[in-house]
Amino acid sequence: MARGGTLIKQVMGEIQGRIAARTALPGSRLPSVRVQAKTLDVSVSTVVEAYERLAAEGVLVSRPGSGFYVAGQVAPLALTEMGPKLDREVDPLWVSRQSLAADADSLRPGCGWLPVSWMYEDGLRRAMRGMARAETAELTEYGTPLGHAPLRQLLARRMAGMGIEAGPEQIMLTDSGTQSIDLILRFLLEPGDTVLVDDPCYFNFHALLKAHRVKAVGVPYTPNGPDVAAFEAALREHSPRLYITNSGIHNPTGATLSPLVAHRLLKLVDDSELVIVEDDIFADFENTPAPRLAAFDGLSRVIHIGSFSKTVSASVRCGYIAVRSDWVESLTDLKVATTFGSSRLAADIIFRTLTGSGYRRHMESTRLRLAQQMDKTAAKLLKLGIKPWLTPRAGMFLWCRLPEGKDAATVARLCLKEGVLVAPGNAFSQSLAAGDFLRFNVAQSTDERIFTVLSKALSAA
Amino acid sequence: MARGGTLIKQVMGEIQGRIAARTALPGSRLPSVRVQAKTLDVSVSTVVEAYERLAAEGVLVSRPGSGFYVAGQVAPLALTEMGPKLDREVDPLWVSRQSLAADADSLRPGCGWLPVSWMYEDGLRRAMRGMARAETAELTEYGTPLGHAPLRQLLARRMAGMGIEAGPEQIMLTDSGTQSIDLILRFLLEPGDTVLVDDPCYFNFHALLKAHRVKAVGVPYTPNGPDVAAFEAALREHSPRLYITNSGIHNPTGATLSPLVAHRLLKLVDDSELVIVEDDIFADFENTPAPRLAAFDGLSRVIHIGSFSKTVSASVRCGYIAVRSDWVESLTDLKVATTFGSSRLAADIIFRTLTGSGYRRHMESTRLRLAQQMDKTAAKLLKLGIKPWLTPRAGMFLWCRLPEGKDAATVARLCLKEGVLVAPGNAFSQSLAAGDFLRFNVAQSTDERIFTVLSKALSAA
Repeated sequence: MARGGTLIKQVMGEIQGRIAARTALPGSRLPSVRVQAKTLDVSVSTVVEAYERLAAEGVLVSRPGSGFYVAGQVAPLALTEMGPKLDREVDPLWVSRQSLAADADSLRPGCGWLPVSWMYEDGLRRAMRGMARAETAELTEYGTPLGHAPLRQLLARRMAGMGIEAGPEQIMLTDSGTQSIDLILRFLLEPGDTVLVDDPCYFNFHALLKAHRVKAVGVPYTPNGPDVAAFEAALREHSPRLYITNSGIHNPTGATLSPLVAHRLLKLVDDSELVIVEDDIFADFENTPAPRLAAFDGLSRVIHIGSFSKTVSASVRCGYIAVRSDWVESLTDLKVATTFGSSRLAADIIFRTLTGSGYRRHMESTRLRLAQQMDKTAAKLLKLGIKPWLTPRAGMFLWCRLPEGKDAATVARLCLKEGVLVAPGNAFSQSLAAGDFLRFNVAQSTDERIFTVLSKALSAA
Repeated sequence: MARGGTLIKQVMGEIQGRIAARTALPGSRLPSVRVQAKTLDVSVSTVVEAYERLAAEGVLVSRPGSGFYVAGQVAPLALTEMGPKLDREVDPLWVSRQSLAADADSLRPGCGWLPVSWMYEDGLRRAMRGMARAETAELTEYGTPLGHAPLRQLLARRMAGMGIEAGPEQIMLTDSGTQSIDLILRFLLEPGDTVLVDDPCYFNFHALLKAHRVKAVGVPYTPNGPDVAAFEAALREHSPRLYITNSGIHNPTGATLSPLVAHRLLKLVDDSELVIVEDDIFADFENTPAPRLAAFDGLSRVIHIGSFSKTVSASVRCGYIAVRSDWVESLTDLKVATTFGSSRLAADIIFRTLTGSGYRRHMESTRLRLAQQMDKTAAKLLKLGIKPWLTPRAGMFLWCRLPEGKDAATVARLCLKEGVLVAPGNAFSQSLAAGDFLRFNVAQSTDERIFTVLSKALSAA
């Protein structure tokens, strides 16, 4: 320790320095006073006094019988306490928790999936009946470590159709798209690492990154993909380890990546250590496929993930990860250690549903229905002065700006009181720059009451 | 910094002190040279030189473009590299990976579940047929945040039957018992925390704890539960945050906790911060229920978890957590963030199967069959000089000592060459003190070839 000022203050300064430098992370336990005293070459009583003062200042938290912890996050881990101090009504978990908890009859233009009546019911029932007659092992045994081989082969063929070269042995099944990303974050990140996300992006990316205690940095999203100049600046400033984005149709904006931006992005990261996770969950909604980063990159630094929650079923949990060969083994170990394997039943049901004769036609009519509903919803919103940021080429989302001076969180709160769940923009925005945006799911916006409630809320907000 | 010795050496000493004190964890990134120089009040070149020397010594690892990391664990996270340097054939993941990858016809006396032909096929098929006619929402929609209410109500009633008071609102469904523990570890632990496990214990606990970068300390298991004196010593020495154990039938020993040990254990931890996770996965195999820690403790410091993989289906992934009320909300946030919810379909199938008229009778005959097979297997093993450590009251496991001088890993390797998977003791032992033990699953030990192969392997080992 430098011998200026009082020793206690120096020890306090040293600890605060570590916290600022993120050597000591929020929630982490400090060394015992004895160890700390030895490390810093000061007396035990000096350390005790420094710890106590920092605890009094709220910099540290004392857990009796356990020691001192860096404050800012009370153990046990509570996600809601980890983020910027937002109203619960617009934190990243708000939309998901509200959407999941709402009963099926409620009006949910803010939710991220299709209504029950739009789903591929016939195909699913057929798959279930098939499963009832399947081999007993299919019904009762654990899956193999990588997961159901026929589904992995099917996925390999589907990816080849988008120009992504991934053998079935490079594809690992999981229980959801979210779990796919979760495993990748565990595999690649250390607490304190930085991850780039689109601003705005799918709100659950924020929650997931918080659960991993990593730092999220937003890159503004343009109608053609991430802002390349901002991406470059973030790359230089933060040395991020990962970038998570949607391929195909972007959530929440409905934008699609242009080949030019895709190319520039991959060129930019050429010399870096950055890994890109491309979440392809909306693939089957596209009319003509947008470029995939995994296709340009050849699964070298891009990891391609997805699930079937939006197009087949969210009740049957199944997702996948396509990844470079030399990472497969470790990712599989991690999956087995943390879940003991993904559901064989779920993979089999998905496989049966996707390969049934009707799926392609079902998705064709769904795309048509979405396009019609997109036009209708946009027209109704425009009448209320709510303007779509762009007209998406496909998908279910309309990312819309409210009339000037209106606050989306206030509108969301007012709508919720009337039983209408809308998705306020800042739930999607790392920089909280979308306070006047709402995301609409056009398939969940067919009921006229939504617009009545919205109109009232806008007047009151 | 203290002004003795050269500055560079002092900086090196400071960093090594942090690593020793686990303020800087293996694999974590050090502050940038600029930040570190400012924190320690030395020049940038001093820090650069100190980092470089520590890298040359192997204390740090330099990742180009990203900075310096504490060595000891290469990112990306590879579980096999995190443990003691064991032969892959006996590391904690070996048994699971081999068991999961083996085809259904192979001989697997080492695997941890019942053969396909023992499973409750009729009930499952009936449940599947029922699902094929279920409401569309059941087939397509996400579950509620806590999960399928009827199954939670059923679980609450089953727990009440064991003296555990847990309302349905205290029970959260997950996708597996393993995932239940994974969520709890995320919720309660920081990297570097200490967790007590039974020695021996279910091997996947080791893998799971490694994935969380926490330290596992083994407590010897006796025929009546953990060794209370050793438990007390470990409590004092390590201030563990968590203890994970099996309730009901212990894996791998088949032992059961006595009321006396349960009482002593809970008394011991009364003044500590320790949380106990009680994994009840083998409950339905018991003839008369052993005491549950959660019943004595009233879910204050005990978390009760379980799944249906061993008794209903491992293909349908479903588990649960029963926990004190004030932790439910945060655990649910964590579940939604990392998986976006557990499978509604799986929970519904499990509910239909458990409440079908035949389940109770099926389990009754399974218990009888297991008891008969337990006797037969023990007799055959004794003929080979392989001695059961105790005669379990119920369940499928026999924990057996090999004849003197025989090494279980060698025997396992020789058996695997002949197509027989056995489970070597050290895969279960934190202290690697079970090098002459094998765990047998009596339900998977009906084929005579197993004993022929075993006999040959013993002669050659």
